[in-house]
Amino acid sequence: MRRTEFSVEEQAEIEAFLKECSFGYLGTVGEDGWPHLTPLNYVYRNGHIYFHGSRRGAKMSEIAAAKNVSFAVAREYAIVPSYFSDPRQACPATAFFKSVHIRGTAEPVEDLAEKADALSGLMEKLQPEGGYAPITPDDPAYRGELKGVSVVRINVSELTAKFKFGQNMDGERREKVMEGLQARGRPDDAETVELMKKYCPYHQGEA
Amino acid sequence: MRRTEFSVEEQAEIEAFLKECSFGYLGTVGEDGWPHLTPLNYVYRNGHIYFHGSRRGAKMSEIAAAKNVSFAVAREYAIVPSYFSDPRQACPATAFFKSVHIRGTAEPVEDLAEKADALSGLMEKLQPEGGYAPITPDDPAYRGELKGVSVVRINVSELTAKFKFGQNMDGERREKVMEGLQARGRPDDAETVELMKKYCPYHQGEA
Repeated sequence: MRRTEFSVEEQAEIEAFLKECSFGYLGTVGEDGWPHLTPLNYVYRNGHIYFHGSRRGAKMSEIAAAKNVSFAVAREYAIVPSYFSDPRQACPATAFFKSVHIRGTAEPVEDLAEKADALSGLMEKLQPEGGYAPITPDDPAYRGELKGVSVVRINVSELTAKFKFGQNMDGERREKVMEGLQARGRPDDAETVELMKKYCPYHQGEA
Repeated sequence: MRRTEFSVEEQAEIEAFLKECSFGYLGTVGEDGWPHLTPLNYVYRNGHIYFHGSRRGAKMSEIAAAKNVSFAVAREYAIVPSYFSDPRQACPATAFFKSVHIRGTAEPVEDLAEKADALSGLMEKLQPEGGYAPITPDDPAYRGELKGVSVVRINVSELTAKFKFGQNMDGERREKVMEGLQARGRPDDAETVELMKKYCPYHQGEA
């Protein structure tokens, strides 16, 4: 079962995470019954996941055949070595991460205005510095392109988030891991220590 | 269909990539027929993917029920903005990445020596600096732990790799994108330019 101590409910935090990550994995079930995974850039907009692709691609054919999809996004913040908390045993080695899991139904977007809006959201997310003409169906230079590209909307029926930052550790081990991360000082380590404090069941409300 | 211009066949390059990435996604089909995605740390060892988890977890139950699995690993090297090659249209915006897709059957590992070997491989990969006693079934301090942990082996039946670094771009656009990446200078950009050269169909054999 999903360990509830890692669950995060705050919608704003989940949305910030979905905005920060550039790509996720689409999970579909092929006609042969096998699970199929496709990494793709996406935008979370108006409560939906949108992505785009070629009209002729395998991804689009699979979605047309199997509407029930999953979508997952994960980011690893830290590999936590065993020796932070145990001088001998390898067993305490772990990893801290955020992940979001979505279930929903995939539906091709046919309306040109919604297509343009979804692609605009994708561009705002992945190219926030701009440098392109706004995408609208009224622009003749985009109209043909909008008709030609496939845009898919995942209608989200379930969204769960798991942010794992040592919530299950006892106080002494948590302290050792925080000290270890601070001393190691890899790019994400300082942020990871802050997230450990933020999600620590004993620190709730302090941050 | 998979665009063959992005396919990579060299086993050594694929293995180096699988070693470099710390986690991938396991795709399974649940008893309810839905695709299910699980991000997890893994090691590619002796031609198999190994991962571990709790004996009581949902992941292990799903694997027991549905042996046909997919496993995917991807890393994004660069978001390529549209303005590198087009001053107006958003359409050329793209992303360069490496991804590996595996199909196989998942099988719980019961043999303690194989379990210990798989976990040793995982530790060597994720904690290469050491700092723990070697994992062997002969070590009484590990024996109970080895029995208690679940280790799963994916018997690989199909492995494909897609390294996308602009192989489909015409020469003029490729030059502009390489110049743009060089000028931008984000952490992965210099490496991305080298990979564009390496996988460019016009540069084959030069590097």
